[in-house]
Amino acid sequence: MASQFGERLTVSIFGESHGTGIGVVIDGLPAGIPISESELLAFLARRRGGQSVCSTARAEADMPQIQSGVYEGKTTGSPLCAVITNQDTRSKDYVAVYDTPRPSHADYTAYCKWGGASDFRGGGHFSGRLTASLCIAGGIAKQILAQDEIAVGAHLAQVGHVVEDAFPLYPTKELFAEIAAKPFPVINDQDGERMQQEIMQARSELDSVGGIIECAAIGIPAGWGDPMFDGMENRLSRVLFGIPAVKGVEFGGGFAMAAMRGSAVNDPFCITKDGTVATVTNYSGGIQGGITNGMPLRFRVAMKPTPSIAQPQQTVSLSRMEETTLALKGRHDPCVAHRAVPVVEAATALVLLDSLLIAQGEQNV
Amino acid sequence: MASQFGERLTVSIFGESHGTGIGVVIDGLPAGIPISESELLAFLARRRGGQSVCSTARAEADMPQIQSGVYEGKTTGSPLCAVITNQDTRSKDYVAVYDTPRPSHADYTAYCKWGGASDFRGGGHFSGRLTASLCIAGGIAKQILAQDEIAVGAHLAQVGHVVEDAFPLYPTKELFAEIAAKPFPVINDQDGERMQQEIMQARSELDSVGGIIECAAIGIPAGWGDPMFDGMENRLSRVLFGIPAVKGVEFGGGFAMAAMRGSAVNDPFCITKDGTVATVTNYSGGIQGGITNGMPLRFRVAMKPTPSIAQPQQTVSLSRMEETTLALKGRHDPCVAHRAVPVVEAATALVLLDSLLIAQGEQNV
Amino acid sequence: MASQFGERLTVSIFGESHGTGIGVVIDGLPAGIPISESELLAFLARRRGGQSVCSTARAEADMPQIQSGVYEGKTTGSPLCAVITNQDTRSKDYVAVYDTPRPSHADYTAYCKWGGASDFRGGGHFSGRLTASLCIAGGIAKQILAQDEIAVGAHLAQVGHVVEDAFPLYPTKELFAEIAAKPFPVINDQDGERMQQEIMQARSELDSVGGIIECAAIGIPAGWGDPMFDGMENRLSRVLFGIPAVKGVEFGGGFAMAAMRGSAVNDPFCITKDGTVATVTNYSGGIQGGITNGMPLRFRVAMKPTPSIAQPQQTVSLSRMEETTLALKGRHDPCVAHRAVPVVEAATALVLLDSLLIAQGEQNV
Amino acid sequence: MASQFGERLTVSIFGESHGTGIGVVIDGLPAGIPISESELLAFLARRRGGQSVCSTARAEADMPQIQSGVYEGKTTGSPLCAVITNQDTRSKDYVAVYDTPRPSHADYTAYCKWGGASDFRGGGHFSGRLTASLCIAGGIAKQILAQDEIAVGAHLAQVGHVVEDAFPLYPTKELFAEIAAKPFPVINDQDGERMQQEIMQARSELDSVGGIIECAAIGIPAGWGDPMFDGMENRLSRVLFGIPAVKGVEFGGGFAMAAMRGSAVNDPFCITKDGTVATVTNYSGGIQGGITNGMPLRFRVAMKPTPSIAQPQQTVSLSRMEETTLALKGRHDPCVAHRAVPVVEAATALVLLDSLLIAQGEQNV
Repeated sequence: MASQFGERLTVSIFGESHGTGIGVVIDGLPAGIPISESELLAFLARRRGGQSVCSTARAEADMPQIQSGVYEGKTTGSPLCAVITNQDTRSKDYVAVYDTPRPSHADYTAYCKWGGASDFRGGGHFSGRLTASLCIAGGIAKQILAQDEIAVGAHLAQVGHVVEDAFPLYPTKELFAEIAAKPFPVINDQDGERMQQEIMQARSELDSVGGIIECAAIGIPAGWGDPMFDGMENRLSRVLFGIPAVKGVEFGGGFAMAAMRGSAVNDPFCITKDGTVATVTNYSGGIQGGITNGMPLRFRVAMKPTPSIAQPQQTVSLSRMEETTLALKGRHDPCVAHRAVPVVEAATALVLLDSLLIAQGEQNV
Repeated sequence: MASQFGERLTVSIFGESHGTGIGVVIDGLPAGIPISESELLAFLARRRGGQSVCSTARAEADMPQIQSGVYEGKTTGSPLCAVITNQDTRSKDYVAVYDTPRPSHADYTAYCKWGGASDFRGGGHFSGRLTASLCIAGGIAKQILAQDEIAVGAHLAQVGHVVEDAFPLYPTKELFAEIAAKPFPVINDQDGERMQQEIMQARSELDSVGGIIECAAIGIPAGWGDPMFDGMENRLSRVLFGIPAVKGVEFGGGFAMAAMRGSAVNDPFCITKDGTVATVTNYSGGIQGGITNGMPLRFRVAMKPTPSIAQPQQTVSLSRMEETTLALKGRHDPCVAHRAVPVVEAATALVLLDSLLIAQGEQNV
Repeated sequence: MASQFGERLTVSIFGESHGTGIGVVIDGLPAGIPISESELLAFLARRRGGQSVCSTARAEADMPQIQSGVYEGKTTGSPLCAVITNQDTRSKDYVAVYDTPRPSHADYTAYCKWGGASDFRGGGHFSGRLTASLCIAGGIAKQILAQDEIAVGAHLAQVGHVVEDAFPLYPTKELFAEIAAKPFPVINDQDGERMQQEIMQARSELDSVGGIIECAAIGIPAGWGDPMFDGMENRLSRVLFGIPAVKGVEFGGGFAMAAMRGSAVNDPFCITKDGTVATVTNYSGGIQGGITNGMPLRFRVAMKPTPSIAQPQQTVSLSRMEETTLALKGRHDPCVAHRAVPVVEAATALVLLDSLLIAQGEQNV
Repeated sequence: MASQFGERLTVSIFGESHGTGIGVVIDGLPAGIPISESELLAFLARRRGGQSVCSTARAEADMPQIQSGVYEGKTTGSPLCAVITNQDTRSKDYVAVYDTPRPSHADYTAYCKWGGASDFRGGGHFSGRLTASLCIAGGIAKQILAQDEIAVGAHLAQVGHVVEDAFPLYPTKELFAEIAAKPFPVINDQDGERMQQEIMQARSELDSVGGIIECAAIGIPAGWGDPMFDGMENRLSRVLFGIPAVKGVEFGGGFAMAAMRGSAVNDPFCITKDGTVATVTNYSGGIQGGITNGMPLRFRVAMKPTPSIAQPQQTVSLSRMEETTLALKGRHDPCVAHRAVPVVEAATALVLLDSLLIAQGEQNV
């Protein structure tokens, strides 16, 4: 089940960076839902290279061809397959990789697992390019969730040493849309400027830098998720760690709560103006005991610095079993965190749609 | 699949804090492995209440009765079920919970999900007591892993504002055993003293405090785990978030890498004295692209402060739908992080044994 | 996932015939459903030994002890575990089995799989005794399905050369109840007499005989089940083949349709008096394309003759690797088909409850 | 998980009969295995229309385009996606289907499930055409199994009233190859002639006829499969019932054993000339207690008559909710059983490869 996830909605991702095509099969979509192609393309555009000065030069059209599962503009209920044909591949850039694995990439572990048979070019199946497949699926899930007034949004919360404000207690669809429309996905554009400077600085030093993405989801009723190993945190973290470069996931107050007192981070219950139960704060991130409590979902995802850097690095020659130095050429993002913002949204939307189908069953039955 | 996990080794946990019994079914254990009962009990003792001054007064024997799956001291290959009969239950302490959910507990979300039918007493199925079931399974998994020279260890890395040293680059079985033998699970006992003071201070202020557990695993060959959504990070995080109070999981350098450069956190490859490939540092936590690289696994788990505190807290009456104040009585740990150390080890051992069975297949076939 | 099945409702069976206890964990039960213990015991009594002249002498009380998941007589939503303590075990009867596997039992394959470590006594985990665990779970599922007016019934359709009538096009709850109340589960008692004679005849000749069980389920709405590999036939067959001695499963017209014409077995659609769509015949067994069509579910299960017979049989000595002769002693049913009737109902009820939860989601969310 | 199956090897099928394309994603293939395209095409040709006089006129090239997972002719270890573009579609033939569901097709149940949103043209996702996707995956699995000397073969055992001989106790690769090379897949060509006459007779009477396929697999070691719900019978039946028109599955002696005695169908153990354990007969079909015993796997699959017949049939108008008559036009096979022979082989090969990976683990780890 390596490149798949989901229970009632299953997502199967295929493709290698420099192979014939990449894509996704989504099984279990509800039937009869109109899918807007332009809205999907707009979502895909958010993760594509060439968006801002901070991204690589590789700029593919990434036009997905839908093979099945959509008829006359609506989902049919049977599996949706979309394929993107790879166009702009420069395999020569990666020849050195075969023998001298790039530090902190999956070259070496893929070699250990598949004995040299994997398609290493461009990172193969581990390439960030594969997140386009995830975004196709996630973009469709977002459109379906919107019919239930559920929205997912994310922003860059940190790049290097630049930290921006967190989402407010109650983020809105309008805020999500505003961030999504920006070339650089932040709440506060001044913070965004400083983040971009941090990224450009890293690039100018032939280096890269990490970041943190904050994600929120609104409109989710209380009661989704199961106890113990199938709660919302379990479901989300399993998928979020499938995004390349993610090395940490925290919900609500997260790691910071280690240094805090219960009296400070317990979320007191209150009655809202509408007469519903809510919490005054949201250190729980909308999840208690694995189950949603009706508050916005809130979590953060840590992305390590892009491992591809232009500085010479120490590695080994697997054929000669001796240490050597590797200097990477080719196009590399000095930071992947900003491009990963819609990817985190996509992964989240898919988990939420699966959870909706689990909680509410099939629509017509 | 709420209270279950695993693919080739499945673990199904049952029980409620104040019900008849709690326990676990483990399916898929390899056959013919001797299980030491005394070793298992010693492991279980590590999580039990009454260990140190920092724990609750509830002190159950937690003697598991094995119903099946062990014959003449060895695993049989068929499912192992162990049951612990609940003895020391004081249900009266929890009567108020029914109508006035405790802040940051699962009372309210269980109410939303199950419409008031759940067994709320003592937290019901969400109680930390259920981690005894996980520890039975994990304690058995540890014994089986030991046959392959695989060991798992953990320590308290932080409580409140007290931070102790991380594991060394290559932790050893001896270090794990040394920590396991201590009444308070730290590397440095002076740090442990300060942590216990922090906990006692919180208790004296009718409050609680959070913590961070660092866990490592050694002896794991390169090549375990699958790409994308079934890598080691995915498998581990899914289970770790099933431990009550866990709100964050990070691997290797984790969240701190957001502020760091690639040149600082990329793990250079080297050739060890034994002639094998290793990395000079371990910011990857032993996992690249979801797959083990032969280095020790290394990750950290954030635990929020115990939500049960003796201070009055704001909540709502669900029957009257109005705000009110709740003052909890009963026995509560001012910190759960130290007791959760073996629980994190147990969860990890189970994921590792499952991964071993996936990678290496069945033993006799 | 050997001894488990189910997606939203998971059933995990444990135990060995002569071990400490056997039982089951059911996860995913809806909450707040009253469970009648007397009704459950009445259902369990139907499969127990000693019911009729045709069964073995082993007569255990099979009183399940519920450990969790039921509070004040109602399901709590968290996993239900029930344990039956084994009482009447005569292990000496089975000593010979270790070295000389019984023909057409699982002794040899268990030996191949588990290298001699399995608990062979009484068939170990493969014993028909384990179907008591399945019946506990199924008996509970039947009570929950009854709340939605869904009923499952079965009868012996064939024993040896004695064949009785099939269920009518529209079987009723009353018919199911009538059969369930009989000591020998047939529609027509004269057929039942002849079947019992066939069984007694086999016993008197130190032999055994096979049979066929027909099962039906009513009250199921159209639209349950998924296409291809997760249709109702797929879900049911996977579980039915988990019942010991089952070697065939057919739906609706089944194997007989191989010799028939489309014009004879196509089910014409009609409008019923109630104004709903139905089919005039039911060769589809209530399932088309894997999905229920609103007609009664109808299928048949083939049971091989009990492999335990008192005649001498050829086998091999695994230690000496030479052919030898085995004469079984101990108590053995000359036919298991009649005792398997409630077991087939139990398996069916569990698959149907899982399908209900998939189709209709969680009750309170 | 509707259109998916498998545990370590997962197969996800997508496509609708008259949509843009159909295909399959296979995840978990071992890496570095050479795939012969010509061998694959030869296998696909066996199920394609236009093979014999008994098949429909629709004759598509069915040339699969591999998108990923193969590099320089070998599997890479990451998911293999293959797409077949639909070419020869005549949607007008199916317009009537929308309102008046075809008896014993999935039109009505798809309507109930998806509320009219499904792509009904040509049977949509339920079309027999989708078995091409299964055959792509199965053809690849057969090539990989061949490396371990495991072979799968099948033949038509019955069409209408014409029954041919069963496989011998030990079928050979040569026999499988001989049958596979024939235009009509039987052991005895005279039987095949009579079967074809039966089919042509049905067609001439505007009718269709059913059949039975016998399948065998050789080279499988003892010990594959798990007890209870994950045995080989469970794994195989779940997938076999995913083939359109399959209504029954039986292993070894199957339904016929209901009328037989244990003394007749118990498989005595013996020592072969090679000094290994075998059974004298194979009524168990190579499986005891769900686990392989080293004998050939042997089972039979019942296929109902093609539901599409040219005779007028009674149905209902869903819009008017009244009974009416439907006369199907278009191209229809009067029998699907002969074309389903390679499909049964494909499904079996995939289950066996999954079981091999479960039993033997990953190759390079």
